[in-house]
Amino acid sequence: MLIPGRTESCPVREYATITRMASPHDRLRDLGLELPSPPAALAAYVPTRTVPVGDGRALVFIAGQVPMREGKPLYSGAVPEPVSLEQAQECARLCALNLLAQLEAAAGLERVEQIAQLTGYVLSQEGFGQQPQVINAASELLAEVLGEAGKHSRAAVGVNALPASVPVEIAAIAVVRPRS
Amino acid sequence: MLIPGRTESCPVREYATITRMASPHDRLRDLGLELPSPPAALAAYVPTRTVPVGDGRALVFIAGQVPMREGKPLYSGAVPEPVSLEQAQECARLCALNLLAQLEAAAGLERVEQIAQLTGYVLSQEGFGQQPQVINAASELLAEVLGEAGKHSRAAVGVNALPASVPVEIAAIAVVRPRS
Amino acid sequence: MLIPGRTESCPVREYATITRMASPHDRLRDLGLELPSPPAALAAYVPTRTVPVGDGRALVFIAGQVPMREGKPLYSGAVPEPVSLEQAQECARLCALNLLAQLEAAAGLERVEQIAQLTGYVLSQEGFGQQPQVINAASELLAEVLGEAGKHSRAAVGVNALPASVPVEIAAIAVVRPRS
Repeated sequence: MLIPGRTESCPVREYATITRMASPHDRLRDLGLELPSPPAALAAYVPTRTVPVGDGRALVFIAGQVPMREGKPLYSGAVPEPVSLEQAQECARLCALNLLAQLEAAAGLERVEQIAQLTGYVLSQEGFGQQPQVINAASELLAEVLGEAGKHSRAAVGVNALPASVPVEIAAIAVVRPRS
Repeated sequence: MLIPGRTESCPVREYATITRMASPHDRLRDLGLELPSPPAALAAYVPTRTVPVGDGRALVFIAGQVPMREGKPLYSGAVPEPVSLEQAQECARLCALNLLAQLEAAAGLERVEQIAQLTGYVLSQEGFGQQPQVINAASELLAEVLGEAGKHSRAAVGVNALPASVPVEIAAIAVVRPRS
Repeated sequence: MLIPGRTESCPVREYATITRMASPHDRLRDLGLELPSPPAALAAYVPTRTVPVGDGRALVFIAGQVPMREGKPLYSGAVPEPVSLEQAQECARLCALNLLAQLEAAAGLERVEQIAQLTGYVLSQEGFGQQPQVINAASELLAEVLGEAGKHSRAAVGVNALPASVPVEIAAIAVVRPRS
């Protein structure tokens, strides 16, 4: 039996499935990723600071995230030797996952309106110039999980030393919308 | 014949010429400079992100700009060898011109209220300490084109590696006033 | 004689002493520290830029501060050689004191609501990974002087070159509350 005004070829459930925006948490699940616990600050600072900018919106400043999983660095050393480009990309991806975990703890991923700025530091051998390719792995994960909101302005630079010689460190500034 | 209340020695036109503020575009022309097309992002990010902060004003986060002209780097390598201080200053100036092109595309140069922050990275030989002299070339161009609005807080640092080994990369945060 | 409603064991003065928050200036005095004159910008920029974000509050962007005392660098060179970890921490502390001097000049320390972001660059030998321990000396001073308001998100990175080869440079973004 057909409900008037609705056709069998477009039932409510299917329509809803087509138009519903996948939530960041849905997307993480689809990517087979799980948010880690937000890493504690390694020293005398805090992982995030939230600054109201009117109308319930806020800037969230996120401390530099490193590729630590359960307190252990994924790799250590410079790129491309001893850490390969692919391994550095894996590190950048883990930095991005830790950024997301910090945002989830500070405000909730659903409230992220945009990532305004990403600054990526890559522990580099002299002459290595593929910092963009390394940090892309983080940028792409943010866009996959947050959609348009995950796209950001960015600086990617090389450095000769990083805390505990991790290959990548990434800091960010996000914007969150009012609690609904 | 004199219009009452006005003297021949200060006609309206001349007075207007004296007090009219030159626009950023006038100043670029006076400096013999042309805004390039805003460089596309080199990777998985966007060149600018705009964050409203109330009353129609906004922060504009500008991605790290490099000394590319029509897709080609002006110079490559570290300062002061193989890239001289003067060549690095030329690079910094081109970075600033690209920053202006991004601001023009994102909001229009006339709307720039201030450059809040400039971060300049200089590909440096060990022991080179003239990063401020390099980045000055960018700072001075911004002040020449934008006047008071172009003056900014700044950090200038050396690094051992940059994307495609360009000698200079500069990121910025600007503030723009409401559309009139 | 007892004033009704007040007991000898909790006189007004003592109560006030217990609950009164020490001001940043009191805390500086208790630490035996004196604010220096805010260092002039070394080049074509300004030491701070203030950006209103509504309700009388503002972001203050503070230029990279270096460990200069009365125009002279405290130490120069990389960490841990020739500059030791302890000497670098002394430098970081002086950078933080200069940041406070800039904030005092721009807005007054009493108006600081939070330090949103600290970015610390440490002139590092390759393989040195204790940037967090160096920058902690700055972070701890900010918390000692400003209390909760002094806690911040942070990135600490190593670099191979800094202006005039100072061992540490620190930039920051603070939030100030309305003038009362």
